[in-house]
Amino acid sequence: MQDTPPDSLDSTPPTPVDADIHEILAARWSPRAFSDRAVNPATLRSVFEAARWAPSSGNTQPWSFLAATRGEAREHARLAGVLNERNRLWAQDAPVLGLSIARLRDEDRALRHGVYDTGQAMAMLLVQATALGMHVHQMAGFDVEAAQAAFEIPGDWEPMAAFALGYRGDPAQLAEDLRSREMAPRTRRRQRDFVFTGRFGQPAGFASAGAD
Amino acid sequence: MQDTPPDSLDSTPPTPVDADIHEILAARWSPRAFSDRAVNPATLRSVFEAARWAPSSGNTQPWSFLAATRGEAREHARLAGVLNERNRLWAQDAPVLGLSIARLRDEDRALRHGVYDTGQAMAMLLVQATALGMHVHQMAGFDVEAAQAAFEIPGDWEPMAAFALGYRGDPAQLAEDLRSREMAPRTRRRQRDFVFTGRFGQPAGFASAGAD
Repeated sequence: MQDTPPDSLDSTPPTPVDADIHEILAARWSPRAFSDRAVNPATLRSVFEAARWAPSSGNTQPWSFLAATRGEAREHARLAGVLNERNRLWAQDAPVLGLSIARLRDEDRALRHGVYDTGQAMAMLLVQATALGMHVHQMAGFDVEAAQAAFEIPGDWEPMAAFALGYRGDPAQLAEDLRSREMAPRTRRRQRDFVFTGRFGQPAGFASAGAD
Repeated sequence: MQDTPPDSLDSTPPTPVDADIHEILAARWSPRAFSDRAVNPATLRSVFEAARWAPSSGNTQPWSFLAATRGEAREHARLAGVLNERNRLWAQDAPVLGLSIARLRDEDRALRHGVYDTGQAMAMLLVQATALGMHVHQMAGFDVEAAQAAFEIPGDWEPMAAFALGYRGDPAQLAEDLRSREMAPRTRRRQRDFVFTGRFGQPAGFASAGAD
C-alpha cells in the first residue's frame, strides 16, 4: 500500500511568498537531513507516476530515471559513489537516491526540449513527493561521466541531476556548516525581475512588486 | 483579488494512471480550446509566484517569462505573431500568451542547468494554474529567432517554449482536426520503460508494470 498522505505538510522553513501559492508548492524544499524511514514501493510508484504524466514537446517523453532504495544496498551505494564528496556526506544515507536523465537526440534528430522536458518531469515528481509528505534534494554536484559509465547510459542520453528522496530528518544529525544552511531563510528574485511584458527586462504590469 | 480555487478540477480527458497521483497532477493537461474568460492580475501573480519558488542549481533561478493578457492587445498580438501558423489558429484568442526563457550563460560561465531549471519553473507554474482551475498549453512551434529579436531577448538567454494560459473553452469552437485531437486518449510510456535500477534500461523493482 502507498503511504497515507499527511494531514498537513511540513512548511519549515517558511516560504516568504509575495502571492498565494498552493500549499504543496510552498512546502516543497530541499533538505539535507533525511530520516531513515523507508519509502515503500507503492509510494515510489506514485512519485514516478507523476513524472510519467508530465507534458513534453510532441509527447516525446524524453526522460528516464535511475533510482535505488537503501534496501538495494549495492545499487544505492553505486549511486552515492558518483556524488561529489560534499554531497555524499549528507546524501549517502537518504532512503532513495536517483538520477534524472534527459534524452538529447532521437536517432539523428536533436531534441531541443529533451533537457527542458526532463526538468518538467522532475518537477512533477517533486510535487508528488511533497504531497506525500516527503522531500527531494537535487544535486548538480556529481560526476556526469562516471555516472554515464557506471550505469551504461547511452550517448544520446545525459544524466542531468542526482537526487536524494525521503522523509525529513533532524537537522541535528548534520555537520555544523550544513546545519546552518538547513536553517537559512529561503530567497528568490522578485517577480518584476523575471516576469516581463513587451520586451525582456520590462516588468509585467501584473507582476508582484513584492516588499522593497 | 485572486480567483477562488474551484471545488473540483476538470479531469477530462481522464488520465489513465497506473498508480495514484495528486488530483492536480492528474488534471494537468494541454487543451487547445480556451474560453474568453479573462485571468485577473492577482491570479497571474499566483501563477508566476509558483515558478518563482521552483528549485534551481545553486539557486541560480535561470528563468524568465514574457507574458501578455488579451487586454494588452498589442503585446498579446506580438506574442501570437511569433507562433507557427498551426498554433496561432487556436492560441491567438487565449486570455494569456507567454514565453518561457532559459538562461544559458552567466557572464562566461555556461549554466548546465539553465534549460532544465526553466523546465522545472514552468512545471511549477502549470501546477499552480491547474490548482486554480486553469490550463496551460505549451508550444514548441514558434519562431525562436523572431521571438529573440521581437522581445529583445539577450543572447545568453533563449526562449524555450511559447504557452497559452486560461480557462478551458468548448472544443466545438475548434476546427474539426483539432477537435478530434482534443478528445484523444492520453498516452505515456510505462514506468518500466523509463524508471531503472542498476543500469539504464533495467526496470526498477518498484516500477509499475502497468496493464499489458
